[in-house]
Formats: sequence, C-alpha cells, structure tokens
Amino acid sequence: MSKGLTSRSENYSQWYNELVIKADLAENSAVRGCMVIKPYGYAIWEKIQAQLDKMFKETGHVNAYFPLFIPKSFLSKEAEHVEGFAKECAVVTHHRLMNDPNGKGVVVDPSAKLEEELIVRPTSETIIWNTYKNWIQSYRDLPILCNQWANVVRWEMRTRLFLRTAEFLWQEGHTAHATREEAEEETIKMLNVYAEFAEKFLAIPVVKGVKSANERFAGALDTYCIEALMQDGKALQAGTSHFLGQNFAKAFDVQFATKEGALDYVWATSWGVSTRLMGALIMAHSDDNGLVLPPKLAPTQVVIVPIYKGAEQLEAISAKAREIKAKLENLGISVKYDDRDTQKPGWKFAEYELKGVPVRLAIGPRDLEQGTIEVARRDTLTKETMTMENIEIVVKNLLETIQNEIYKKALDFRTANTVTVDNYEDFKKHIEKQSGFVLAHWDGSTETEEKIKQETKATIRCIPFDAPEEEGVCVYSGGVSQRRVVFGIAY
Amino acid sequence: MSKGLTSRSENYSQWYNELVIKADLAENSAVRGCMVIKPYGYAIWEKIQAQLDKMFKETGHVNAYFPLFIPKSFLSKEAEHVEGFAKECAVVTHHRLMNDPNGKGVVVDPSAKLEEELIVRPTSETIIWNTYKNWIQSYRDLPILCNQWANVVRWEMRTRLFLRTAEFLWQEGHTAHATREEAEEETIKMLNVYAEFAEKFLAIPVVKGVKSANERFAGALDTYCIEALMQDGKALQAGTSHFLGQNFAKAFDVQFATKEGALDYVWATSWGVSTRLMGALIMAHSDDNGLVLPPKLAPTQVVIVPIYKGAEQLEAISAKAREIKAKLENLGISVKYDDRDTQKPGWKFAEYELKGVPVRLAIGPRDLEQGTIEVARRDTLTKETMTMENIEIVVKNLLETIQNEIYKKALDFRTANTVTVDNYEDFKKHIEKQSGFVLAHWDGSTETEEKIKQETKATIRCIPFDAPEEEGVCVYSGGVSQRRVVFGIAY
Repeated sequence: MSKGLTSRSENYSQWYNELVIKADLAENSAVRGCMVIKPYGYAIWEKIQAQLDKMFKETGHVNAYFPLFIPKSFLSKEAEHVEGFAKECAVVTHHRLMNDPNGKGVVVDPSAKLEEELIVRPTSETIIWNTYKNWIQSYRDLPILCNQWANVVRWEMRTRLFLRTAEFLWQEGHTAHATREEAEEETIKMLNVYAEFAEKFLAIPVVKGVKSANERFAGALDTYCIEALMQDGKALQAGTSHFLGQNFAKAFDVQFATKEGALDYVWATSWGVSTRLMGALIMAHSDDNGLVLPPKLAPTQVVIVPIYKGAEQLEAISAKAREIKAKLENLGISVKYDDRDTQKPGWKFAEYELKGVPVRLAIGPRDLEQGTIEVARRDTLTKETMTMENIEIVVKNLLETIQNEIYKKALDFRTANTVTVDNYEDFKKHIEKQSGFVLAHWDGSTETEEKIKQETKATIRCIPFDAPEEEGVCVYSGGVSQRRVVFGIAY
Repeated sequence: MSKGLTSRSENYSQWYNELVIKADLAENSAVRGCMVIKPYGYAIWEKIQAQLDKMFKETGHVNAYFPLFIPKSFLSKEAEHVEGFAKECAVVTHHRLMNDPNGKGVVVDPSAKLEEELIVRPTSETIIWNTYKNWIQSYRDLPILCNQWANVVRWEMRTRLFLRTAEFLWQEGHTAHATREEAEEETIKMLNVYAEFAEKFLAIPVVKGVKSANERFAGALDTYCIEALMQDGKALQAGTSHFLGQNFAKAFDVQFATKEGALDYVWATSWGVSTRLMGALIMAHSDDNGLVLPPKLAPTQVVIVPIYKGAEQLEAISAKAREIKAKLENLGISVKYDDRDTQKPGWKFAEYELKGVPVRLAIGPRDLEQGTIEVARRDTLTKETMTMENIEIVVKNLLETIQNEIYKKALDFRTANTVTVDNYEDFKKHIEKQSGFVLAHWDGSTETEEKIKQETKATIRCIPFDAPEEEGVCVYSGGVSQRRVVFGIAY
C-alpha cells in the first residue's frame, strides 16, 4: 500500500481531498457536485446514523418519510425562508422522455411539461408543515416529534467531498409544539444531543451557541449550532437546531385548539446534521499517514495480521488469531483477520493505517512460542509487545483509552488555538494566520459583522452559551458589548 | 376508536385504501403520486429494512450510496434498458429559481438551464456501472457486492399508496462478477434471501420462479421473482433478482483482466425490494377490523390496557402492568402500556386492533385479586383469561405461535386458491373470478402470452422453479409444453 499522501503542512486542502479518495471513503461522480459514498465511507456513516437514531428515539422522536419534491409555490409561502434559501436548487420541469426523432438516444418529451415545477427538496420545512396542517387540530395532537433520514439537493457551485456537495445525506427533525417554551426547550435539547454525539462518538469537542441574526437559518427566530475546530485552524459548523417560532405554522395556516378552547398557531423547531460530519471526522483527527478513526465509529476496530513464512506457520498463527478474534467479538468488538497471501504484512500495515483501524495486532512465529502479541495504536503510531493472556480485555480497555485520548488531543488543540483578542490589529493578525477560534467583543450589529467579514473573511461562528458576562468594547466599532463571541474562518 | 372500515367483501380495494389511512401508515401528499409515510408505517418499514440489511450483510454485501441523478445520455447506453424503461420519469432541466420579476413568489431562472438534463433515478444500473468502470481493473477487484437503500422515482400515472407511487423507497443490490456462473449464483442467492424474508418475517408464502421474456427487466437476460397471493385473489410481485449478463458492462465498457491475463466484460446482477412490501404485508393478513401484523415486524408486539375505576385501582394495576412490561422487555419483546385516562378501554381495544398489535393484555381489579390476566390475540380475535404467573413466557410463545399461524393461514389460502386448468374455457372461468393462481400449460411464445393478456388480463407471474416436468398442451394455442406456469391477475 503506497500512500503518497500530501502532508497536512504542505497543503492541508489537498491532503484532505487525497485522503477521502485514497481511504476509499467517497469519490466524485459523473454528475456535477454529486458524490458516490463508497462502502468504507458508508460503513462509517451507518455507524453515525445508528447512534444518532438511537439518541433521537431515546428522546421520544419517531421517523417518518416525506416527499422528495416540493411544489414551487410552497417555497414562496414563508417569505424569509425563500429569501435566504432555495434559489440554487434542482428544478423538475418534465415527467417524460421520448425517443429522439433523429434517432439519437432519448430527449425530453416537450408535451410532458409539469403544470407546476417541482423542486428537489433542499430542506423540508415547507412540505412537512403543509402535511402537519392535516395532522394537527387540537393540543391533543401535539407535540409531533418527527425525524427523517433523507437525501437533499442544493446546487452548490463549488463542491468538496462530504463538506459541500450538491446532493448530500442528512437527517432533519421537524417538531410541532403547543407552546413557545416547549419548542425552545426542544431546540436546546436537540442541540445537546448533537453536542453529546460529537464529543462522545466523533471525539470532537464543540462550542455550543447561538448564531448571530446574519447567520440564522432562513425562517428561524433563532439558530443554535455546534462549532468544531479543524486541524488547519478553520471552523466547521457540525450541526444546527432551529427555533422556528410560528413562522411556518402561519405560512401554512397550521392552527390548533388550545386546552382553553382558543385557536393558536403551532410552534416549530427543525434540526439537522449531514454527511458533512464525515468531513469533520476526517479533518479533526487524521494525520499524514491517513485516517484516524475514533473506535466507536470505526467499521473495523481491530485488525489482526499474521507474520509468517510458509503454510505451516500460517496455520498455527491462524488458529491463535481466530481464537483471539472470537474472544474480542464476544466483547462486542469488530475484528478483521487479514490472512490474504497476496499482500505482505508491511503493505497491510500501511493500508490499515490509511483506513484508520484503531488497533492492529500482529502475530509472528516467535510470538506463538513466547505467548506474546504485538499491539499497535493507530492514533499514536506506537506499538508494544504484550502477553497474549487476556489480550481481549487489554484491547477493550485500549479502545476506550484511544477514544478518550483522541478527544483529549482535539480538545488540547482547540485550547491551544483559541485566542482572546481586544483590538482589531490583533484580531486581523490571528485571523490572517487562520489560527483557530478568536474570542472578541462585538457590538451586536449586523453591519459590524458584515464589515469584519468583508475585510477579514472571518464570521461569527456563534455566541457561545458558556461565555461569561463581561463588559467590553467591540474590536471593530468600539461599541459596547456584554460578552465575547467566537470568530473564525469557516468551512 | 370508531373504525368505519369498508369490509373486504364489500369492496376490497376501498378496504385497502381506507386501512392504510386509518391505521396511520401513509397518506397522499401535496405532490402528485408521492406519499408521506407516517411514523407508524415507517416503523414497520424500519423493521423490514433492519432485517433485510442483516441478511444482505450476512451474505457478504456492503452498503454504498450513488447519486440521485442520472445524466440523460446514460439512459441511452443500454438499448433494451431505455426501450423498456425510463420514459416516465422526473426530468431536472434547471438549477436555479429567482424572484418573480412580477413580484409573485419565485420562478425558474431561464438562464440556469442545464447543459444536459438530469433524470431522477428510476433505478441505478446506469450510474452505478459508470462508477464501477473506475473500480474494476482486474479479477482481484471482483466480486463487488454493493447494495444501496434509496428513493427512486417513476412517474406512474395511476398511483396507490405503497403499491404504486411516483416516489418510493427501496434497496437495490448491484453486483459485479468475474464469471457468468458466479453472477447466476448470486442472482438465485438473493432471490432465496427475499423468499426467506417473505416467508419467515412477512409471513407470506411465495412462489419462486423466472419471468417470461415478456415480463423481464429491461436489460436483463433473466429476471427471477417471488410472487405472492393477496386475499382478493390477485398476485403481487414482491421482489425481483436480475441476471444482467454482460449487458451493462458492455454499455459502460467495464472490462477486467482475468486470472489468465485476458480481457473480459464483467458479469452483473441487480435485485430489489421496495415499500411495495408494505402493501403486500397489509393485504396478505389484515381483516375487516384492521391490520394484522406478524409479530416479527410489529413495532409494538404487546399492548397492556388497564381496566379501572378511580386512581387507586389504576395505581395498583399499573404497578402490576409495569412489572409484566419489564419482564416482557427482558425477553426482547416490545411492549406499550397504555394508561391514558383520555380514552376508554373499549376505544383502546379497537385502536390496537386497527393497528394490528399482535397481543393485547388487559388487567382489571378482579384480575389483581385473582392473579389473572386477559390475553387477546389480534389474528384470531380470541381471548382467554390466564394466570399471571410466567405470563411473559406464555406471551413469548404465543408470539411465535401467531407468527407461524399467520403464515399457515396465508399458505392455506393460497393452496385453496391455486387451481390447475387444462383448457382455455376453464382458464377464463377462473381468471374472471380472479380466483388466485392458475397453473396452466403454455407454449412458451410471447405471442400467446400477449393474446391471453389481451383477452383475460391475466399475465404469467412466473415459471416456477418447483414445477414438475410434465408434458402438456398450451391452453391457448394447443402447442407443446413441458411444464405448467403460474398465471394470475397482477397488482
């Protein structure tokens, strides 16, 4: 396995692009901006899905499925929604092909034009609230706590595998509530679910906070987010949870009879994470040798490689390896025993490094004699010879250690790359170096935010929940400020 | 819970349509032909998915994801494929909306016309084989055993919830092999997986067989299928597995270096089942009181309803009910305890009948005194008072019994509704009554098949694998025949 991976220091962006391809995660397809998620990449996504789905269900949500298409007129119903969104999208105008009269394959049948164009969903608030209208009459029908796993399409001009693609996979939760308080509580609850998932499973520390008005989801009263820091010092928005107020209920006329017998509009939230998380996962932990996967999301957690000469040695080693594999699997650990004779051990080592398998076990003839085994960690690239006895317990504990230490490493990186600045010169100096999160005072105005963005490309990633109240002056305008916000260069 | 369900004998078709709505499985959406799968329906689909996915993985398959869109030109590459398919489909022609210059919402931006139209996938052979071209160089890259769970769109003119919708959910397996034998073996293997799933989980007996040339998938050399019989005597194709030969490899120029160093085209299969299985599940078992679900696919397997007067009784009953619930859950059984005080027990009984919950337990004050519990079966609508002791074991066994007996009932129905006929008069008589599967000799010609279809609407459902060799004469033409085939009126 020759890697030939560009190093991060040489060209981080190229390193990422190459890694996604070389580790067999995804590739570009024949359709502009649409990716093919390859089996290894999809296996990671399935683990992400399974865990999130579990957490959604534990918090009382159910899955459903709504149409891929949205009638064009629906997009105009919520004024801010259409203003901030939904312009770059795939438009279905016809419903039939026909044989080319000139004999060249197929052409669109001009007689099969749709009366109203259909938009491939860029997000589903409109079609879902149009549906909820029929589901909700009284407070007894509330809350509705639906999620859907789906594909969505946004016709992005500049695409990058996982980070920004025309079609991507995601989940979108859409909930309906009788009161403002309940909807706000739901919004925060789901943000916390995302944060917990990011930290415990992706092993990525995140800042929880609220977006500035400028960065809000089109149609939301408040957008909450989790923001992560990548190794190149750029920020990545890893999930959002929106408090939609009564905007969509009003747009689609969804009213309910309250307990008191009055009529009121329903309160809404929506929240989503996407295959973009794959990009975050790759960029947060991986190194110049390839992927580094947190054990909890690694499709294969342990690989066993035999080191042998001849069939007899292989047979003896294989017997031992299978025994260890069975013991590990009994503990719920996924294990691959790679006894292919078409590749040398060194090639295999490099391959599993590239693929980010957290723990590699190697067994040679001398190990058999001495009852030892070589245990290698992908994250630290260290290895150690250990006794085979109770190796399954050792490996189980090691996987937990790796999960924790990967997180710790990312947290240390973020701590080291979070700076507090008090004037615009310092601000610009740090932002130019793309050196992580910059905590600065801001006067709260969209105007200032826009000017800073124009001049430095930095955006307000969020107003963090845990920012202490602290009187200060805006680094740009000198206006008053009550707390620092997080600036950064975003993906 | 007032059902007001039309009876099957009165109007089977209406019974089905009403049941899908009243049992909260699915509904029509604002988009013509596209359905909303409601949480209860989706929960059943999730169980179907989970089990099939497990079976696919156990047979060595992996999941991946390919683009939603297919460039129009791809559809012309495999001549038979485009001929038999892909005409009624959703065509994306533009990639941007803009504000209406007249101020009326949004319109399609005429300047954002795509150079080549994109088709929303009706099936993915073409885009996948275009992708496989880059994955396959040598026999070492084979086999490829990919599956994808996805949505697909076929612009059907007449739609019915689950049975035929413009957008539906499915899985499509696409495999690539070095030899014809291996691909043929895969085709049959997956047909067997489908048949096993249908019989053991859906509890629907199926006939396995091969389609006549006329009913073959466009582009396949052979299409195998499983055919099920519904309670109205109509046949439903529940899954197909296609041996595609080298057709798609040739169309997309996918060649590989063989072990011997020659170049050859790759052999292909594809196979799929869809949300149509939901339709089969509903129609095969349900009755005039509502859904009957096989326990293995029921989202809730057991419901416990308290019968009480006053808070004190409820408290005592609830304590016992929760105890039983915990014991059942320990055995892996999904249980709902419905202690809502907004509805009466009778209403709840009717609701869970409608929803097809396999077992209902009811506990009243006298039960508490006597240590008894009422156990009701949804499939037979029978009930029995039993001792509470070891009730969890009794219920666990009962769920297995129900699973088996539902299957047995469907099998008995099919046996009673399968007739052997030897002349065209009898053939027509049975087909007119829509009385199930009709086994008849056929001369093997497409011409005869077409004529029979025109005259009677009956189609050859399949040439069954288990049909004994039996000399005979075609009921229509009098031509020679070696075995009987299955005719029926199909959904």
